Parts: sequence; structure tokens; C-alpha cells
Amino acid sequence: MPYPAGRHFLQIPGPTNVPDRVLRAISAPTIDHRGPEFAELAREVLSALGPVFGTAGPVVVYPSSGTGAWEAALVNTLSPGDRVLAFETGHFATLWRELAEKLGLVVDFVPGDWRHGVDPAAVAERLERDTGHSVRAVCVVHNETSTGVTSRVPEVRRALDETGHPALLLVDTVSSLGSIDYRHDEWGVDVTISCSQKGLMLPPGLGFNAVSEKALRAADSATLPRSYWDWRPILTANERGFFPYTPPTNLLYGLVESVAMLREEGLDQVFQRHRRHAAATRAAVRGWGLEVLCLDEREHSASLTAVLVPEGHDADKLRELILDRFNMSLGTGLGRLAGRVFRIGHLGDLNDLSLAGTLSGVQMGLQLAGVPIDSGGITAALRVLEEA
Amino acid sequence: MPYPAGRHFLQIPGPTNVPDRVLRAISAPTIDHRGPEFAELAREVLSALGPVFGTAGPVVVYPSSGTGAWEAALVNTLSPGDRVLAFETGHFATLWRELAEKLGLVVDFVPGDWRHGVDPAAVAERLERDTGHSVRAVCVVHNETSTGVTSRVPEVRRALDETGHPALLLVDTVSSLGSIDYRHDEWGVDVTISCSQKGLMLPPGLGFNAVSEKALRAADSATLPRSYWDWRPILTANERGFFPYTPPTNLLYGLVESVAMLREEGLDQVFQRHRRHAAATRAAVRGWGLEVLCLDEREHSASLTAVLVPEGHDADKLRELILDRFNMSLGTGLGRLAGRVFRIGHLGDLNDLSLAGTLSGVQMGLQLAGVPIDSGGITAALRVLEEA
Amino acid sequence: MPYPAGRHFLQIPGPTNVPDRVLRAISAPTIDHRGPEFAELAREVLSALGPVFGTAGPVVVYPSSGTGAWEAALVNTLSPGDRVLAFETGHFATLWRELAEKLGLVVDFVPGDWRHGVDPAAVAERLERDTGHSVRAVCVVHNETSTGVTSRVPEVRRALDETGHPALLLVDTVSSLGSIDYRHDEWGVDVTISCSQKGLMLPPGLGFNAVSEKALRAADSATLPRSYWDWRPILTANERGFFPYTPPTNLLYGLVESVAMLREEGLDQVFQRHRRHAAATRAAVRGWGLEVLCLDEREHSASLTAVLVPEGHDADKLRELILDRFNMSLGTGLGRLAGRVFRIGHLGDLNDLSLAGTLSGVQMGLQLAGVPIDSGGITAALRVLEEA
Amino acid sequence: MPYPAGRHFLQIPGPTNVPDRVLRAISAPTIDHRGPEFAELAREVLSALGPVFGTAGPVVVYPSSGTGAWEAALVNTLSPGDRVLAFETGHFATLWRELAEKLGLVVDFVPGDWRHGVDPAAVAERLERDTGHSVRAVCVVHNETSTGVTSRVPEVRRALDETGHPALLLVDTVSSLGSIDYRHDEWGVDVTISCSQKGLMLPPGLGFNAVSEKALRAADSATLPRSYWDWRPILTANERGFFPYTPPTNLLYGLVESVAMLREEGLDQVFQRHRRHAAATRAAVRGWGLEVLCLDEREHSASLTAVLVPEGHDADKLRELILDRFNMSLGTGLGRLAGRVFRIGHLGDLNDLSLAGTLSGVQMGLQLAGVPIDSGGITAALRVLEEA
Repeated sequence: MPYPAGRHFLQIPGPTNVPDRVLRAISAPTIDHRGPEFAELAREVLSALGPVFGTAGPVVVYPSSGTGAWEAALVNTLSPGDRVLAFETGHFATLWRELAEKLGLVVDFVPGDWRHGVDPAAVAERLERDTGHSVRAVCVVHNETSTGVTSRVPEVRRALDETGHPALLLVDTVSSLGSIDYRHDEWGVDVTISCSQKGLMLPPGLGFNAVSEKALRAADSATLPRSYWDWRPILTANERGFFPYTPPTNLLYGLVESVAMLREEGLDQVFQRHRRHAAATRAAVRGWGLEVLCLDEREHSASLTAVLVPEGHDADKLRELILDRFNMSLGTGLGRLAGRVFRIGHLGDLNDLSLAGTLSGVQMGLQLAGVPIDSGGITAALRVLEEA
Repeated sequence: MPYPAGRHFLQIPGPTNVPDRVLRAISAPTIDHRGPEFAELAREVLSALGPVFGTAGPVVVYPSSGTGAWEAALVNTLSPGDRVLAFETGHFATLWRELAEKLGLVVDFVPGDWRHGVDPAAVAERLERDTGHSVRAVCVVHNETSTGVTSRVPEVRRALDETGHPALLLVDTVSSLGSIDYRHDEWGVDVTISCSQKGLMLPPGLGFNAVSEKALRAADSATLPRSYWDWRPILTANERGFFPYTPPTNLLYGLVESVAMLREEGLDQVFQRHRRHAAATRAAVRGWGLEVLCLDEREHSASLTAVLVPEGHDADKLRELILDRFNMSLGTGLGRLAGRVFRIGHLGDLNDLSLAGTLSGVQMGLQLAGVPIDSGGITAALRVLEEA
Repeated sequence: MPYPAGRHFLQIPGPTNVPDRVLRAISAPTIDHRGPEFAELAREVLSALGPVFGTAGPVVVYPSSGTGAWEAALVNTLSPGDRVLAFETGHFATLWRELAEKLGLVVDFVPGDWRHGVDPAAVAERLERDTGHSVRAVCVVHNETSTGVTSRVPEVRRALDETGHPALLLVDTVSSLGSIDYRHDEWGVDVTISCSQKGLMLPPGLGFNAVSEKALRAADSATLPRSYWDWRPILTANERGFFPYTPPTNLLYGLVESVAMLREEGLDQVFQRHRRHAAATRAAVRGWGLEVLCLDEREHSASLTAVLVPEGHDADKLRELILDRFNMSLGTGLGRLAGRVFRIGHLGDLNDLSLAGTLSGVQMGLQLAGVPIDSGGITAALRVLEEA
Repeated sequence: MPYPAGRHFLQIPGPTNVPDRVLRAISAPTIDHRGPEFAELAREVLSALGPVFGTAGPVVVYPSSGTGAWEAALVNTLSPGDRVLAFETGHFATLWRELAEKLGLVVDFVPGDWRHGVDPAAVAERLERDTGHSVRAVCVVHNETSTGVTSRVPEVRRALDETGHPALLLVDTVSSLGSIDYRHDEWGVDVTISCSQKGLMLPPGLGFNAVSEKALRAADSATLPRSYWDWRPILTANERGFFPYTPPTNLLYGLVESVAMLREEGLDQVFQRHRRHAAATRAAVRGWGLEVLCLDEREHSASLTAVLVPEGHDADKLRELILDRFNMSLGTGLGRLAGRVFRIGHLGDLNDLSLAGTLSGVQMGLQLAGVPIDSGGITAALRVLEEA
């Protein structure tokens, strides 16, 4: 154990701080995955997941990372050489594009400045141009974990609807699910991709695909080779409470618990809490006189905030100092943002005082690193948190 | 909790009984997967795994089930339309074949009776015939979890060597690794496939590929589409103690602990313990006057025993009775063995008295189910366990 | 960790095997013992305890061992120089006597052979002789943990009633509570002493006094000095859900859980299970051709069995061998029984297969120690367990 | 679970936040308290405790609260009617006095204002007057948990030495041990009283007495009745690694871990950390324009700070508001301080950011409760924490 005292502040934008209650749940003894007790567990998990995704349809659970869930969404719905439309909102959008290309898809990648979300007008414009409907899927990262920018999925949906384009809508909710309002069915999303270690407050190890009827139909004609990720045998087995291969039982115990926690607090309350924390964080950043990466007020992420450090300062050196001195992990700048931003995760099982501790640590770290700031940042944040 | 009292006996051939020590380890708080503490953990895990596989080369760890590790072995080494040679040793060999076919490979499937392992002579004969070296890989299930039969991998290797055939040797050690002597390097295996929930005494959720130099070279020319399973970015990131996507941190905590337990007991002792337990189990089966499924004395599995129930009795009814009355899970008969056999898992974190309890439960269950047996089975087993 | 593999068999007559569920409960974070959440916990615990003791009156909970609860029963009800009537049923009755004498009480100690319970006729005879009612309390050990003999408390009560003697009845239920039928109110017991680590399936650390109205009145005039053990401030604070000094919060978490487990199984079922296990154990002992220490069929303990080893054999050497070879702890012979008996605990969270494993271990140990036995013991035990 | 999200801030002056590592340790299976594994554990614990108390002599461990350890110190060293000298430093000193009187001792109680520690001059003056040496013991509370005032024990010792008075020196270190520099041997203390749930970072349930040679000699002639608390049989049994009654095994597991944590950080570092946190807390209090209860700069407690609320405000209403809104427990005003002070615990497993969160919560609570404060308190505290 490298740290001298106290609980580590894990304030990266995921994995998030796993609640004790969830950690205790995953430490229960593993059971027979073909027995009646497991079937009950699986049915409980699968039916509890729907409301979290905002869907009455099926949610497929994989033993995988979120990356695996990206791959699953593509191989189940597309065929070699298919075109997909994607948007350069940041590092993760870029990684997803690379993944798609490795699988043999052709990606139409709309360039971006990493400070804005997907532009719904650009979606409309691209789809209108695609009169032959060669675009088979539109891929959107709901909340860009590398930038702290949240794309407006309902407006993207409207773009699809208004152009009458039949492409599937695939949405990555890795760092928004369970933290930011999201509605798979209502927004007409075809595949929602997510994973366990962010708003769901679990350790990493579970990937998810919520799947629409239309996506299921697409799966019947899609020809990318697939076996592990194939939805169909999973959905068939799930009906009886089982899985076609050994499921990650102990993480499922944790999932039962974490979904119960979301339900007990109330999803609306959870979203509201994340918005308050994000607002308090931005108040701190502005109080320090620093700049938030996200440029559009409509797109500020409720689950993380990326902060630009002034020229001449290295964000990673700052993070290192904060880790050493204050036992807190912050998110690094990824890809083209390396060294220029640090990211504060304020998602998952977090309350006002832990956020206050987090922002205090950032403020002290900035001072110690010699970044010129106004020390009123923390006071500004507390003022936001005091409000009901 | 459905059972009235006492600890459940999880005597399926995996998942196995996870030691308390491992369960406590996986309940530690999740940490930053990009931080220095994680890098230390990853390096510790990765270097400790080698001896368990008997390799000085790399072991790739996936957030996946064992099925995912099967897929990984194939997509990293093969190209669409490649031929592989496989053997119908039982249900899992059959599933692996189906998986390969779904990925677009051509499988030469040598039929079998599900009561024997891979016949090394048949391997030699097939490879000799393949003068054009169209077979790119030989796929062997080391220990068939559905039958309790262990194939003689060194003799399979010799068949490859003696015919001078350049095919890769891919071996599934799902239910043998950490339970039955296995030597990736010494036996010239190219990819060893395994997972966490059997001899490694962990919950499900980790898949493994141990990879030879030759397999790594094959990966450079293989063209099956791959991204999640791709060894190369993983091995590159592993060098610095990281992973290209979020790793299943808490299961890795458990892996550190379970590999430490194997080391503390000593792998040779572990293997010897499993052999003793298998011998005691067979003594019980024969003492009851029943038949072990495996027909070749050289091929009895040390990690599980499949038992044939006499005509007119339903193995699944028996298992259900034992679960209800004695709070013990046994393995079902899979595929063509459904209803005809039950399987006793005696692998993982097991000691003499838990095995004695297990065999006592089987004996009482058989009596209560009206299967005609000799009640001397348990005494015969204890006699074996009494020996040093 | 000293043992090579598998779960330790803790078959001493307490501490017993703590269920995982209880261990996980005690690992929850400690809370403010003066806050509303604690008050709710305390009220839940205190009201749930009554049915376990068979009382509608108060149960006092101490941070202490069972020995502390012995002391508490005496200092709350008696004054220096008071006479108490006690019975030499075994080692623990003898220890309790010594404790009473250290506190300044005069103990009338009726001799016994350590193979019988309290003789109700002797109680009647002694009390009849005590025409001046100088005896202030009758002390009975319900289940002698050192001998496996259960005294018939209702008949002792009758002896008090029939002689019209006003003495208090103090009963030690350390190794019977939650395992053997016991009824504080119905049997007219004044103080019932118990602790956490036996039938309540918890780690050690909690002592209990269930207290009658008559005992509470006695507390008002008793003059042995007392502070820590004083019932009155505790009962007063308990009314609001608090304690006069810091309570052992985490063990109380476990107590909530263990009492829930007893309730879920049903106390009658729990007692019946213990009786079956005791019968199976005696069947094994007799099957081996050995002798059970308890001589009266009406007094066989349902929670443990003490077994005499034949002349020329050392029970402690046997226990040591069994610990080394089979990873099982058995109870030692205490006091005058040292070396002559070993004790098999079959209480707490135990099921048929764990008992079968236990008896298998004893049988193998006896054989290896060269004690001449018939190996049919285990089969005889299984025959009992097969019965519904 | 009553709170909507995030980890509870347990900032009462004990029980303190128990580290995950300790909670996991206490959830290990209970073992045989008479077996070789336990003996090893006990010896490890007992030898590791010495350095924490600053003694080469024995430390007695009880299954009890700290109150029990108070009682133990008195009944082992004193006889009915003995006189002891004690000081009214606050609520706990007053409770200890009451306990002593209940046991039949005569307490010379020097009045105090609850804002100062023991006055060494008063000690000297009282002892000088006691020419007949009728005072048998001097009782000092090292750190008054009700007031946040730390008495200067070395100066009290000097008063004893300089007057040549033979009285025993008994010191309560309940809220100082493991948090504030303390030296049993060097300071010539005869009995040091402590417990588990404060600086030792454990759940409640263990009481301690560190015992000098002189105290051990006093135990031979002391005549207060004692059995449970008697040092002598415990020390005798401890020599072989055992206890005369069932020890609280699982808390001992935790004790091994928590003492290891203190050792890993280094006791000097631990003390220094507590001093920094106390200084930061006082900076906040003064920054808010409020008053610290302790009046003597030499006596500020490093483990807790009691804060006076201005006239017209109710400290308990404030605490309630903070609990409801910010999920943080603070200490109540005890005895004559009820409603007038609240106490901030900053002891045990605490780091800078958790303290910053704590002080942020107090600041916001004060504002919301309408207590007139300057919001610069938190910034002042952070400035202290920024210093190395």
C-alpha cells in the first residue's frame, strides 16, 4: 500500500469509487452458473437493467471492457465494407473509429476540435447527401470521456428522422449511463454501448449493449464474423436465466446492488446530483481563473470536467504532484490533449463533501505547482453546493 | 439465500469454490488503471502467471470468459478459410469447432466417442496425409470438462514433430490449468487457452492466452478481423504495466492472491493433491459399483470425474435431489451425455474433508434416488485419502 | 496461511464456522454510535434477540466474552457473601464456580462425574434442606461444552417450584442458544447467560444476559460492586437505541444477519437439524466401536459430542494428527478429561455434507493414529443423514 | 442505507473511519482460539502493541469497550475505600470518577472549567498535602474527548516524582493512543487505558491496559473483587499465546493490520499528520471567526477540536443539519457542553482531502444554519495543508 493514510480519492472519470456495499456484494461466493439460484440472479439483473438504459427491450451483458461492447455493437449489425458515419469529438470517438476500421468497416469521420459535441446540423447535412443510403450506422459518443463534452443525442435522432435516413443509431454511453439522463427507447437509439466501471459504480469487467428491434433485425443479415459477441445465443439463453458461456457471476452480484442503489436514490435524483457537482466544479475552475475545455454551455458534461492548464504548465506534472501529496488520482489529457488538460471525474458514488475534498486537492495542487490561480475557487464551489 | 444452513458445496467442474482469501482480495477498492500503483500490480500479475502456464513467454489477459480466449487464439493466428484439425473429445471440443466455423475457418473434425482423449496416432496419420500443409493449426482440449478425459498433449506434440508438420498447436487448458501438470514451453504449445474460474480459484471473468514466438509471428500475417482480441497492442501496453482498454482490476487483485496460493502450496503439490482426489473419487465410484465415463487409464482427469448412471435412471433428477437435500451442485451431462452422466468437480481449492463430504453427498443422493449401489463407496474413498 | 488448500473445518464446539454472509456484514463501515442510523440498528437487534432466547423481556448485550456475561449475571443479582447452589457437571461449571468465589460469593458445589447433567432430584433435595432460604441463586450450565451433556432445565425449574424456594435461576446457554431448544420465559429462568460465537454463528466478542422481572428487582438490592456490567444504565439507554458506552458496532451488524438467518431457517428447523447431526455423530462413534462420554440418553447434547478414546491412546495427539493431515480443529479434553476425550462440535452454520466431511476426518484420523475402530462408522452416520 | 450517495464522513472523535484494509482483515474466518495458528496470531499482536503504547512491558487486551479498560485499571490495583486523585477536565474524567465511586473508591476530584487540562501545579500541591500517602492513584485523562484538551502527562509525572509521592499514575489514552505522542515507559505511567475505535482505526470492541512493574505488584495486594478483568491469568495465558476466555479473534485480525499500518507510516509521521490536521482545523475555526474550546495553546488536542457556537445557536441542530445535508457525523457537546459545542474528530485514518471535505461540510453547515461566519475558513485551512 503506497499511501500513508486515508482513503484514496479516485477522481478520474472512471473507474469510479466503488461503494463498500458493492464491494461486499462481489465478495460473495461464486455459484453454479447453470443452477436455479443463478437463473434467479440473472433474471433479476437483466430486468433491473432496462430502466437504467431507459429501455423495455433487451440488454446484453458481456464479460468484457467497454471496448468489447463497442466491438459487439458493430459486429452484430454490420457487414464487411459497410460505411458508418462518426464524429471526431475526442479521443474515444477516435479509438472507436480505429476499431471499426480494424474490423473492415469504412468510417466517414467528421472532423472536430475536441471542444464540442456532435453537431446535429452536420449529421443532417451528411445524411442528406447520402441519397443512396450507403451509411449503415451513425456512431455517437454521448459523453466524451476525454473532453467532458456531452452530445445532444435527441437532436442527432431528429436529424436522422428529418432526413428519413434508415441508418442505425449507435450510442456510446460509457461515461454517461447512470450519471446523465439517457433514454434508449425514447431517443430511438438502436444500440447503446456501456460498461460497468463508471456511473454503475462497479469494478471494470462488464460490457453492455441495449438493443432495439431494428438492431436485432440488422443482426440477422449482418455478416461480420462473430461468435463471442453474438447477441442471438445470449438472448436465447437469457430467457431461461442463463448464458451461453460462463458469466462473470461476482460482478453480477455487484450489479444487482449498484442498480438497487440507483433505484433507491432515484435516477432523477442521481442525474440532478451529477449536474450540481458539475456546476460546483465549473464554479471552482472559473473561480481559479482557469478555462473549462468544453466550449458550448449546452454540452457541459455532468460526469467529468476537463480543465485547460495555462501555457507553460504541464498538466501531467500537476497530476503527479497531486497524487503524491494528496493521494488523489485525476484523469490525464488523452491524445492531442496530452499535457494540456487534466480531467476531474465527478461521477458515480460521490457526495458533496468528497467533491469538496476533491476540489480542495486540485486547488492546493495548482498552488503548489505554481500555476497562477485565485484561491477563491473552492469557496465558489461551496457556494454552489450550499444551494438546495 | 435459498439454503437453510451451511456452506454450499460447489462441486461442478468450475466455477470452483473461491477461497475466502481471494474473495477478500477482489473486494479491495478499484484503483486508477493508468496510475503507478496499477502498473506495479499488472507487472506482478503478468510475471507470476508464467510459471503457472509453464512458459517464459507472454501471457495475455482478457476481460472475458474462456470462450473469449478460444476466439482470441483463433483470430490472432488464422485467416479466413484456413483449415484447422480438431478432435471430437466431447462437448467443449464440439463448441470450439462451432466457434471456429462461425469465424470462417474450415474444421477437420476427427470423430470420437466422448470417452477417450485425442489419439496421438490419429493426429500423426492426419498430418502425414496433409502433405500440402493446408492444416494451419491443431486444436486440442487438454482436459475435456464434459467427460473427465485428459488428452496426452506431449504425445500430440510428438506427432507434429515426427511428421514435421508446421501447424500451430493450440491447447485449451480451461479445466486443467493449475490442477493438472501442464507445460506450455516444454511441450511446444503455440497458444494455451485458459480462464479464471477453475484451477485458478477465481470468479469467472478472465480469459488467458499464453503465446509462443511462432504464434506471435503467425499473428503478423493472420487476417481474421480483430481488435478487442488483438495480442499486439496488449503486449505493447503490458510492457509498461498497462492495458489498451480498462482491465478488470478487481479480478486481477484476486489473481495475485490465487497465484500466490498455488506458489505457496507448490505446483507439484497441487497437482499431486488433484491426482489423489481423483483417485479417491474413482475408488468411490467403483465402490458403489458404478462406471467412470473415461475408458483409458492413462487419461483419467485429475480435476473432474464423469460418472455414468445405470439405464433407467436420470442423472439430472439425481443432481436436483442432491442440490435440494444436500446443498451441493454437481455438473450436468452435456450434449449427447445429457441425463446419462453427472460430473463431480474435484479441482481448485479443495481438501480431503470437503471431498469426503462431496462423495458422502453423492452416495446419499444415489441411495435416495433409488440407484442400486454398494454403500462401501465412501469407505473405499477414505481408504485412498488415508494414504500419505 | 498455514494450510495447503481448502476451507478449514472448525469443528470445535465454538467458535463455530461463521457464515460468509455474517462475515461480510461485520465488514461494513463503523457508524456513529450516537446517531439515528445506529439507534435504528440497535432497536432492530434488541427486538430480534428476544425470540432467540424465548423471552419477551430485555436482553442485555455486552462487548465481552461469555465469561463476562457469567460475571454480569452474578454482580447484578447478588451481594458479597451470598450463597449460590451449583453443580459439577464439567469444566465450565467448575470455572463458573471459581469466578463466583473470586467475586466473594459462597458456592455450594454439588459434585458430579462429568458424564451427567444436573440431577433435578439433587436440586430439590438441596433446596428442601435450605429452609432458611440462604441460597440466593441456583446456577445451571444448560449444555456443558466440556462434556456434551445437556441438563434438563425445565425439571430443575420444577424442583425450585415444588420446593417453593425463592432462589433465582441462572442458566448458562453458551453452547446451546440457537442450537438447542431453550425458553427463558416459559422455563422461568431469571438470568440467561450466552455469547456470540456458538449457535449465533458470530465471531467472539458479544456477551448476553436475558433478564427476568424478578432478576431486575434483585438488581436493585444486590450490592456486589458493579459498573461496566450494571444492567440498569444499559437498559435505560437501550430504550432510545443507545448504550452507555461505545457498543461493538460491527459485531452488531453481524448479529442482525445471524439472527435473520435463524429466523429464515426457522428456530424449530434449526433445533431439528442439530438433533439430526448429533444423532448421526453418535451413530458414527458407535459404529467405530467407541464410547460417547454422556451416559444418559435424555442428556445427549445436540451441539457437540465428546468421545472417549480407548486406554493407551492420547486424544490430543489424535487431534494434532487430524489438524495436520486434514485441516480440521476438534475440541480438546478439558480439566480432568484432558487427553481422554476429544469433542466434535456440530453446532452453528453446519450442513449434512460438512458433518459428513467432519466425521470422515475423525474416522481417518483414528485409523492413522492406530486407534482400533470399525470403519463402518461413517456409513452408519450417512444412514442417519439420509433419513428425512 | 439512509444516505443517497457517497461515503459517509464519520468525523466524530471516535469511532473513526475504519480503513478498508482493516475491515477486510476482520472479515476473515474465525479460527480455533486454542490452536497453533491462534497462538501465532496472539503473539504477533501482543508484541506489536508495545511500541504503540511506548512500553516494553505487557499490554492486556480485553473484549470490552474503553469503559471496561477503565474499570480493569482500578480493580486490578486498588482496594475498597482507597483514595484516588482525579481532575475534572471534562465529561469523560467525570464519568471515570463516577465509575470509581461505584466500585467503592473515594475520589478526590479537583474541579475544572472543561477548557484546560490537568494542572501539574495542582497535582503537586495536592500530593504534597497528602503526607500520609493516603492517595493510592492519580487518574489523568490524557486527551479529553469531550473538550479537545490534551493534558501534559510528563509534567504530571514530574509532580509525582518531585513530591516523592508513591501513588500509581493511571492514564486514559482513549482518544490519544496512535494519534498523539505517548510514552508509557518513559513517562512512568503505571496503567495506560485505551481502546480500539479511535487512533487504532478499528471497530469498537477491544479494551487495553498497558501495565508497569509497579502496577503488577499493586495487583498482588489489591482486594477489589475481580475475575474478568484480572490481569494475572491473562498474562499467564498470554505467554503461550492464549487467553483465559475466548478472545475476540476477528478484531485481533484487524488489530494486526491497523498496527501494521501505523508502523508502515511511522508513528512519528502519524503524530505529525495529526498535528497538521489539528492546526488546519483551528485555522478554519478562526477563519470563520469562531472560538476553539481549548484555552491553552500548549494543550490543543491533535485528535479533535471542540468548537463553541455563538450564543443563540444550537450546536446539535447544526450537527443534525450537517448530517442530513452533507452525510457527515460530528461529535455532540457532552454533559455541561450540550448544545454549546460541536466536536470535529480528525484522528485515525484521515488524509488532507478528507479533512478538507470535512471542513467544507462544517463551513456550509454553519452558513445554512445561519451562524454568522466568514467564508474564508476553508481557504485558511487549505493554506495550512499546503505547507509541507
